[in-house]
Amino acid sequence: MRDVFIIGAGQTPVGEHWDLGLRDLGASAIRAALDDATIETVDALFVGNMLGGAINGQENLGALLADAAGLLPAEAWKVEAACASGGAAVRAAALSVASGAHDVAVAVGIEKMTDAVSESVTAGLASASDCDYEASHGLSFTALSALLMRRYMHEHGVSREDFAPFAVSAHRNAAANENAMFREPISIEEFVRSSQVASPIGVLDAAPVCDGAAAVVICSRDALQGHHRAVRIAASAAATDTIGLAGRADLLTLGAAKRSAEKAFAASGFGPKDFDLFEAHDAFTIITALSVEACGFAPRGEALKRAAHGCFARGGCIPLSTFGGLKARGHPVGASGAYQIVEATLQLRREAGPNQVPGARVALTQSIGGHGSVAVTHVLEA
Amino acid sequence: MRDVFIIGAGQTPVGEHWDLGLRDLGASAIRAALDDATIETVDALFVGNMLGGAINGQENLGALLADAAGLLPAEAWKVEAACASGGAAVRAAALSVASGAHDVAVAVGIEKMTDAVSESVTAGLASASDCDYEASHGLSFTALSALLMRRYMHEHGVSREDFAPFAVSAHRNAAANENAMFREPISIEEFVRSSQVASPIGVLDAAPVCDGAAAVVICSRDALQGHHRAVRIAASAAATDTIGLAGRADLLTLGAAKRSAEKAFAASGFGPKDFDLFEAHDAFTIITALSVEACGFAPRGEALKRAAHGCFARGGCIPLSTFGGLKARGHPVGASGAYQIVEATLQLRREAGPNQVPGARVALTQSIGGHGSVAVTHVLEA
Repeated sequence: MRDVFIIGAGQTPVGEHWDLGLRDLGASAIRAALDDATIETVDALFVGNMLGGAINGQENLGALLADAAGLLPAEAWKVEAACASGGAAVRAAALSVASGAHDVAVAVGIEKMTDAVSESVTAGLASASDCDYEASHGLSFTALSALLMRRYMHEHGVSREDFAPFAVSAHRNAAANENAMFREPISIEEFVRSSQVASPIGVLDAAPVCDGAAAVVICSRDALQGHHRAVRIAASAAATDTIGLAGRADLLTLGAAKRSAEKAFAASGFGPKDFDLFEAHDAFTIITALSVEACGFAPRGEALKRAAHGCFARGGCIPLSTFGGLKARGHPVGASGAYQIVEATLQLRREAGPNQVPGARVALTQSIGGHGSVAVTHVLEA
Repeated sequence: MRDVFIIGAGQTPVGEHWDLGLRDLGASAIRAALDDATIETVDALFVGNMLGGAINGQENLGALLADAAGLLPAEAWKVEAACASGGAAVRAAALSVASGAHDVAVAVGIEKMTDAVSESVTAGLASASDCDYEASHGLSFTALSALLMRRYMHEHGVSREDFAPFAVSAHRNAAANENAMFREPISIEEFVRSSQVASPIGVLDAAPVCDGAAAVVICSRDALQGHHRAVRIAASAAATDTIGLAGRADLLTLGAAKRSAEKAFAASGFGPKDFDLFEAHDAFTIITALSVEACGFAPRGEALKRAAHGCFARGGCIPLSTFGGLKARGHPVGASGAYQIVEATLQLRREAGPNQVPGARVALTQSIGGHGSVAVTHVLEA
């Protein structure tokens, strides 16, 4: 494979963008990434999006955004891998450049969730799980995550409060991120008192419904000339697991997350001890814990203990969700994987401002879809 | 780019599969393609699908079908490019193998449209057009195609009847295809008398709403060993045009189709005169005509004249839709691009039975989405 690099990154603020449509949000992030790369156009566009068909009545987002961002007649199509769509779109762009088909491509993750009634959003998110055997029986996406959390508490003998450090740390990190949706710090007490969504998941365990778009420009070594702040994609890997929870031998091992991380470690030569930060898929605190364990930052069942010791906070052994993560920066589902890579890029370019991880040189990002049925992992190197 | 080859092809019959879900249809086509390639598993799966979110309540089809087809933990995600999704999925698989990331990948196109009420299907298909400026004002997908047909008739001075040869020829070709939905030949008189859907488009101008899945196994030259019937992907190209019709300088030139064909011709070294058959995107007779012209098989405005002379029938200068095409084999939208490539593969392997184009050596396929806002073109060589 040819080496591929990130030479531009752009994002919109995450929030409730009542005044912006899919084309506005997407074009805004794409143009910001192109401006950052100081280029005008690209050979191809890959759009990560999950819910366009289910809640926006808009598919064909490749053509829509190539048109809106002034990229016609570039190749463009959409990539969907549930909540991992953004990570998968970056991977699609990387593969297209690695293949030699293109020299410069842009990947954008985009989601607009707040235009729909909440029942539609709940139904849309449930389409990431098994429609025949889970969703159609009334199990929402959050309810399925709650089953995982309950099992974790039962098997590892921990309480709901023990998950607090992930949420507290995410909100703390988001405070200085001007693109974050929630910039107010929260306390452990507020976490504990937060109302239940699907027991034991409380509202402060969960990432919000929101809108946003983030984009990166990716190029080959040949096209790198003059781009002095390039970040190398040292590895990109994806894997799958059973779509339904009932099919898994061990509910508390996210097989796809583990497998994609192992592939990324093998391809890059980096392992858990080498990373300076980890942009985790913290859609729910239980998923954060399982992702941390799948990537080898804690043994099975030990993530909460390490979190209690501050391991995942800024200054800890491996800082997590350094701009607030899905929990506090926000989780526009198909965009989140792209936000992670934008944020890791800023860290490796030492442009993270008050959120900077000192000396950041190697970063891991992991985008997870459908309760771990699909995962996309990237290793980025300054 | 590394050379890539097709070593397996599989399909389900196209029709109304009330007894099969997405997982059954998809796994059936994938397993058929793997059996045809005499292999057990692959490194990655790319799923072309458009309407899973809009009408089936099921996204995350990568994980769903990797699971259902026994391919876990292989990388898997969905590709969406409206009605060109199947072609784009094949391209995604080809790029992944060309990049060196994988040696063997499978692409499946799948759509299940008959489980939904017709209003949902109409709304789902409209999501391929511009939601803000077309669909939300009541323009259905067929209505937009009707505007193109009306313009073609006006500008080129032809009548509705002049489009008949495309439909007649498609139905004739489908008669011997056991996977086709409509195996009854139709006459020009029946075409003319057929009831109007959106004037001037009649029911016999239009491809049907239906279910189906088709898959191809793609590999690198290194993985080719022992596969004696391999077909080379001599070129694969995609391009875009404005998503809304109003944005186009010339309504009767499908810019994305033209541009992707030109890229495929340049990459393969083959041109219109070299092809032995053309699997065209004949979703409506007007789109067939425009695609034929975009690919250089007729000058602008001349496609119907050539059709009247039998140029596109079997035995003509360039046989079209040799197994019945979208019109008569059927058009499960996200699957059609994959069906085209399966059928072209059978032709080049001389396994097309009564539909065989004698001496077929080089084939062109073109998958078009959203009234030409996106197109994916492949050149295949025996």
